[in-house]
Amino acid sequence: MKSDHTHDIDARSWLASANDASTPFPLQNLPFGAFRRAGTNEAFRGGVALGDQVIDLGALSEAGAFLGLAADAARACAQPSLNAFFDMGPDAWRALRHALFALFDARRENAGSGQRCLVPQASVEHGMPAHIGDYTDFYTSIDHARNIVKLLRPDGAVSPNFKWMPVAYHGRVSSIGLSGQNVRRPCGQRMAVGARVPDVGPCTRLDYELELGIVIGVGNGQGERIPVASAEDHVFGLCLLNDWSARDIQAWESTPLGPFLAKSFATTLSPWIVTMDALAPYRTAWTRPVDDPQPLAYLSAPALDESSAIDIRLDVALETAMHRRDALPPTRLSCTSFRHQYWTLAQMVAHHTIAGCNLRSGDLLGSGTISGPSRDEAGALIELTQAGHAPIRLPTGETRAFLEDGDAVVMSGWCERPGYARIGFGENRAEVLPAKWD
Amino acid sequence: MKSDHTHDIDARSWLASANDASTPFPLQNLPFGAFRRAGTNEAFRGGVALGDQVIDLGALSEAGAFLGLAADAARACAQPSLNAFFDMGPDAWRALRHALFALFDARRENAGSGQRCLVPQASVEHGMPAHIGDYTDFYTSIDHARNIVKLLRPDGAVSPNFKWMPVAYHGRVSSIGLSGQNVRRPCGQRMAVGARVPDVGPCTRLDYELELGIVIGVGNGQGERIPVASAEDHVFGLCLLNDWSARDIQAWESTPLGPFLAKSFATTLSPWIVTMDALAPYRTAWTRPVDDPQPLAYLSAPALDESSAIDIRLDVALETAMHRRDALPPTRLSCTSFRHQYWTLAQMVAHHTIAGCNLRSGDLLGSGTISGPSRDEAGALIELTQAGHAPIRLPTGETRAFLEDGDAVVMSGWCERPGYARIGFGENRAEVLPAKWD
Repeated sequence: MKSDHTHDIDARSWLASANDASTPFPLQNLPFGAFRRAGTNEAFRGGVALGDQVIDLGALSEAGAFLGLAADAARACAQPSLNAFFDMGPDAWRALRHALFALFDARRENAGSGQRCLVPQASVEHGMPAHIGDYTDFYTSIDHARNIVKLLRPDGAVSPNFKWMPVAYHGRVSSIGLSGQNVRRPCGQRMAVGARVPDVGPCTRLDYELELGIVIGVGNGQGERIPVASAEDHVFGLCLLNDWSARDIQAWESTPLGPFLAKSFATTLSPWIVTMDALAPYRTAWTRPVDDPQPLAYLSAPALDESSAIDIRLDVALETAMHRRDALPPTRLSCTSFRHQYWTLAQMVAHHTIAGCNLRSGDLLGSGTISGPSRDEAGALIELTQAGHAPIRLPTGETRAFLEDGDAVVMSGWCERPGYARIGFGENRAEVLPAKWD
Repeated sequence: MKSDHTHDIDARSWLASANDASTPFPLQNLPFGAFRRAGTNEAFRGGVALGDQVIDLGALSEAGAFLGLAADAARACAQPSLNAFFDMGPDAWRALRHALFALFDARRENAGSGQRCLVPQASVEHGMPAHIGDYTDFYTSIDHARNIVKLLRPDGAVSPNFKWMPVAYHGRVSSIGLSGQNVRRPCGQRMAVGARVPDVGPCTRLDYELELGIVIGVGNGQGERIPVASAEDHVFGLCLLNDWSARDIQAWESTPLGPFLAKSFATTLSPWIVTMDALAPYRTAWTRPVDDPQPLAYLSAPALDESSAIDIRLDVALETAMHRRDALPPTRLSCTSFRHQYWTLAQMVAHHTIAGCNLRSGDLLGSGTISGPSRDEAGALIELTQAGHAPIRLPTGETRAFLEDGDAVVMSGWCERPGYARIGFGENRAEVLPAKWD
């Protein structure tokens, strides 16, 4: 989709906090989530972040603020999960976006119904935006793949299928949580280098992986394919995803069927889904190196090449207990952009369905670890610390090879481009709790 | 659980078809599923198979046939899925089993309420017995593992973790279907031997895998472990599972993260879940070869060793279009028993939760392909035909290296033991439809 008036950098809201230069949620963003007032037994319902407020879509729907498709869409958002809204498709998503934009636009004369539907973000708790039927984790950063291969074998090469298909595996749904929910250090079985017998105990090489979560809006029937040219119409939006990884468990269990317990104890999502419409202005071209194979026909959409990548800036910061004690801000560990990814969202969706696997609204795809070409753009500690051999020195005087108990991993993401507003994803934060082990 | 009066070989029902020597569903079985009358818009509800009838648990609950815990359990089964019933735990499962046994026992004096709740199996359609939140596929047959390794490298060995842990990977939930739903041949990307460029098209090496589906009754909290000694209390029962596999796609995509599209286009379950209580009499000892490592503590439950395996006989038959034309019965391809499996149900459940991954009621575990020690006990065509090099000759005059369009794969399973009734799983049948490809 092309840029439209909802991307106008000069647009202002009558809600002052939406115009604050530091908010991730100006009028041009309007990301979706599910929420209720914290400490109540209210039902969760859909909400949209604006400035420091949540627009309560349940209340807005009841107030009859909108007409036509936008009203139908708001009504679908009044439910505890957004799946029914997702199922309505891009026209409905866009109709609601435009109606919300108009209602909160500073030029709006009577915005009373908007005013009455605001809930301060500071007073809400979040629910999962949608019921997730399946979660698939991709592996689409060639820099990540190269970094990992080099750690395993200095002369190794990325697996031969990497440049031909967006490789992926199935992940675990039950343990997906939201930012703010802390994560217990897992226990498991691993084989030490040179050992002949594995041992069991708390993970000693706990890591994060910086990813984007791709939220499916509209699915496909079993046995049907989604063509790459229209694949993005099936994507509702993106959020931040931390694919927690137990490297010691992973190394021992993953042959021959891939990662299992090393990644299924927890996955953390940020609560707000930034829509594909909001991301439109930050799209950019990505072209394969000329020596690389060109994508097979089912993965090729030349008309999209000029805008196939999205420049989403991402960073990961670490906050240890010492940071908190000394009131220091989290230490940034790395910063990169989603635009380096080797495979696009459209290619991931098209590939996922080539064999007839059905996607359903609310399904989650992980982008895979997002690492950029330079070393300080790596999206996981295993890359940044060379598998622990080069620990990171923190301003607190501590060092980190892998995560310690009490460490909080804080991911954030935003888009900016001259002539357009700066929009953000908010924060994805979770702290490591000590393992339970006897 | 020990054998009790519900396993009495002399028990007879007043429902004549339940006493038929050929029925998989005598009074001693009582497997659970979900159903409605075919061709209606009735809500699905829980049912139990008995002879050629379904006991309608919705109707039975409404009729007030039971008291106490059994009545509560029947009420939970009146819903479209059995998850709430599963959540009630083994005492409730057993109470309902015993109440059903008593109601349909031939010695019952007034069984009118039972009579009024019967629906002929021939007139029903099945629903998924439970909402499946996650599906995990294990790899627990050492004979299968050995067979596959030999095909890849004649001097190869099973991966070193095999004897230390029940290896597994996450599977796809959205494409799980029931017996009777046909399966479209998938398309996908594969690299021919010696080729430098992959191609895309209909799968040329379509296979089945004979497995058991393990249905989780009671889950665990995230970050909590299920001890191996009590792990079976979390299992509601078993069904037949066909893990359809596209071998050409699998070989090319599975490095480094495991199978993905090769197995996510379809998985087929039999509609009836045989409970752990019904299976109790057919348990048997399994002991590791003395040279093999003994299980680590979290996988070790010596008190269970005498009954850790279950002698479930399984067979796979093939029915081609020629069989149907010539009115020939399906050709049996192989026959084996679940008792050969290297890892037990309890070990799978305990291992699944060692890192804190939460199971939920209704979750599905696949046993992994079930192959026995001899060649004709192999649970997949790739093993039976030596990766296609030794095609099977059928009585129709045809040969099969892999599955052709129109082939129906028919799996069945049963238990028998001197002094006990013969109970069955019924049938798991699905036919291969031609690929859709331009």
